[in-house]
Amino acid sequence: MANIGVIGSKGAMGEALRRVIEASGHDYAGGADKGDDVSKLADVSDMLVDFSAPGALQSNLHAAVGAGIPMVVGTTGLEDKHHEAIDHAARAVPVLQTGNTSLGVTLLAHLVREAASRLGSQWDIEIVEMHHRRKVDAPSGTALLLGEAAAEARGITLADNRESGRDGHAGARAEGAIGFAALRGGTVAGEHSVILAGDEERLTLSHSAENRAIFARGAIRAAEWLRGREPGRYTMEQVLGI
Amino acid sequence: MANIGVIGSKGAMGEALRRVIEASGHDYAGGADKGDDVSKLADVSDMLVDFSAPGALQSNLHAAVGAGIPMVVGTTGLEDKHHEAIDHAARAVPVLQTGNTSLGVTLLAHLVREAASRLGSQWDIEIVEMHHRRKVDAPSGTALLLGEAAAEARGITLADNRESGRDGHAGARAEGAIGFAALRGGTVAGEHSVILAGDEERLTLSHSAENRAIFARGAIRAAEWLRGREPGRYTMEQVLGI
Amino acid sequence: MANIGVIGSKGAMGEALRRVIEASGHDYAGGADKGDDVSKLADVSDMLVDFSAPGALQSNLHAAVGAGIPMVVGTTGLEDKHHEAIDHAARAVPVLQTGNTSLGVTLLAHLVREAASRLGSQWDIEIVEMHHRRKVDAPSGTALLLGEAAAEARGITLADNRESGRDGHAGARAEGAIGFAALRGGTVAGEHSVILAGDEERLTLSHSAENRAIFARGAIRAAEWLRGREPGRYTMEQVLGI
Amino acid sequence: MANIGVIGSKGAMGEALRRVIEASGHDYAGGADKGDDVSKLADVSDMLVDFSAPGALQSNLHAAVGAGIPMVVGTTGLEDKHHEAIDHAARAVPVLQTGNTSLGVTLLAHLVREAASRLGSQWDIEIVEMHHRRKVDAPSGTALLLGEAAAEARGITLADNRESGRDGHAGARAEGAIGFAALRGGTVAGEHSVILAGDEERLTLSHSAENRAIFARGAIRAAEWLRGREPGRYTMEQVLGI
Repeated sequence: MANIGVIGSKGAMGEALRRVIEASGHDYAGGADKGDDVSKLADVSDMLVDFSAPGALQSNLHAAVGAGIPMVVGTTGLEDKHHEAIDHAARAVPVLQTGNTSLGVTLLAHLVREAASRLGSQWDIEIVEMHHRRKVDAPSGTALLLGEAAAEARGITLADNRESGRDGHAGARAEGAIGFAALRGGTVAGEHSVILAGDEERLTLSHSAENRAIFARGAIRAAEWLRGREPGRYTMEQVLGI
Repeated sequence: MANIGVIGSKGAMGEALRRVIEASGHDYAGGADKGDDVSKLADVSDMLVDFSAPGALQSNLHAAVGAGIPMVVGTTGLEDKHHEAIDHAARAVPVLQTGNTSLGVTLLAHLVREAASRLGSQWDIEIVEMHHRRKVDAPSGTALLLGEAAAEARGITLADNRESGRDGHAGARAEGAIGFAALRGGTVAGEHSVILAGDEERLTLSHSAENRAIFARGAIRAAEWLRGREPGRYTMEQVLGI
Repeated sequence: MANIGVIGSKGAMGEALRRVIEASGHDYAGGADKGDDVSKLADVSDMLVDFSAPGALQSNLHAAVGAGIPMVVGTTGLEDKHHEAIDHAARAVPVLQTGNTSLGVTLLAHLVREAASRLGSQWDIEIVEMHHRRKVDAPSGTALLLGEAAAEARGITLADNRESGRDGHAGARAEGAIGFAALRGGTVAGEHSVILAGDEERLTLSHSAENRAIFARGAIRAAEWLRGREPGRYTMEQVLGI
Repeated sequence: MANIGVIGSKGAMGEALRRVIEASGHDYAGGADKGDDVSKLADVSDMLVDFSAPGALQSNLHAAVGAGIPMVVGTTGLEDKHHEAIDHAARAVPVLQTGNTSLGVTLLAHLVREAASRLGSQWDIEIVEMHHRRKVDAPSGTALLLGEAAAEARGITLADNRESGRDGHAGARAEGAIGFAALRGGTVAGEHSVILAGDEERLTLSHSAENRAIFARGAIRAAEWLRGREPGRYTMEQVLGI
């Protein structure tokens, strides 16, 4: 059992993290938000979980390094300089950074890589996702992450092979294309399917989230896994033993 | 049991029609194609099934009227003048014209109308279809037919409420919108799903075709239903008792 | 806007009902549970929603009749005598009783009736449901309700045509059978699919619930619909205009 | 390009194999069936594909060894003595034996192993399959093969953890159980889904076959892969590089 501090405790993930920490038998060491001194939180925590903003990342990492404790970074929108700061901090403490803390999505991306690399490019890849009616961008970040996994496994770039938003007389499908379709409606938390369609058979690999608690749960599992590790930079894949 | 003549016997549907006619215990009266005299075929047939081309429709109808036999018209791409010719012939013989001879799709359109009219516009409607990799247009004609059914049931026009090919930062979903997504890959004969997504619940109505024989089977069932009817113009819905 | 009183306010549905009442702009008139005087609640309510226990139904109905207000009965496990008590109360006030207050499920049952009655018995009907790992009975009550709808539409009895729990060398499917399959796992709130499988085509009608709030929402919508009606006994189907 | 001989050419797979051989640009060396001399076929073939009967296996292997050519064995119902005969022949020529020649199913089993070994036993596994109305046994052989893959990955035995045919008051799901459900209807060629249901998220891995040609296609791809190999016994997994 550990004392876990949450940075970004008033954000979209903060409350979910607190609930999962307590339900898992850990102690909630406290929360820090914009304007707070993260070092104080770090001093009373065994590890930190950060779902705040890119601008705060550097000082959050300092706090973890200062206290000598591991940190999980789930903040999105990171740029090169943020990744450099993570690499730097990872020389002193264990840091796990990821764009998606769901164990299920992490595993799905792994399965997509496996499938895409075993089946030739005559198996057409289509990615379809559904989210609630208020989501403003398409395709979802997770859909693109899955597309990247497929492209990488095939040794191609997604940018050159992406077919998105088919509408009208678009012509036949290009060989090797990776297609995307986005559905929007209701209150759907998030569903993703990767279809590999061959001649007269089809493989479909899907993930469905009931709500966003799964992202909190994955982050806490990552924190548990990180505890007691050597300093270094780690990934969600490693938490799953991939 | 009846003698059924097929117009367009060398086209995409011709062979499937012949097989279904024989498997159903009817007799295949023969086939007619471009350049053939359809009147001769009509003379030895109890009814005609036409899956040829719009340009041949008028003379095909003449042949049916001349022989005094019913005719099923499955030819697509009809314009106003063709519909007028059908109305004219329907004063003398029973004629059933439809853009989709599948019983399952006809019923699906009916269920979509029922669902869309019972549930308010706060239930978001999304239509997703998948077809083989060689299909050149999107969304499919059947997807549009289902969208029209939903729009009609809600008293709106599809043209004003269609959201198709979402890609990029499209903004939140418009209330009352009917969304379309098209998947392409492999050898999929045709799958359509209409999703009605409300607050925390979802209704999904789907049709899946294993191959194009179902269109032939539906056409022959329509022909059987048409036999012995009064002159007039009929629809697939009526075959299903809708 | 109305004052809505909840009977069974501490039960599984109580908290969900309170939240939906307030989110809908109504006022929560209060809750009554075992040992409370429901008449007092009725006196300050414009209508009552009852999700308590069969044993309390008769006195709850008395309270509604005494106050001259409508009542929605969502309590399950009712026997003949309870239905008689409802019929009696319905001479004085509007009462809507239902075993499933979800609008989506109510509509799905209607669509299943439509589909089963239009398609002949050579279309095989299969019903598959998935629920969380703690559910102890199979198939679910909703699956059976959907099976009854299909059987009724075909003019057969479910009891004589039910195939449930296939395992081992069961032999080919009986014509006209209605099959059931139950999946259990995770925290799934409830998913039901009715498959109508014909020759080379398939129709699938599905409902998916994200959580049990939908039952509260449907009950409140029923209460809104009930307000101002003539005394009488009503159904969820009528709320949907079916 | 190769001359491929088919043993069991008049059986369920024979015609499909011939069509795939010719469509792939190979030559159909001929077919052998009960009573034929397989050695003669072997003499004019570069390799053999055997989908006949267990009783013929030993002499078929002799023919391959005599001609010094590779052989794919897709015959089902093999016993220990047949496997010993295969091992023996594999000292002289390359032999690939498998209970399922579909590439998609082979890959699916691999993905199921990956998923089941990464996710703990608190993720419930359910396997659901659908086949045509004439199939007499349940669950399908492929469903059991997938269940075995999951059990093996978890280090448990399927026999001790199988929950099949839930019906009635069965009680809550046992932890670690692998559930099976069988749907029957229409003309469905074969669909299999493996669901891993965790807390508030779900992973679904599915395969869908449009017809049985995929088994012929996989067998011919196996034969192509086998050509030029060292003597030995091989598996479908190896064809996919697993």
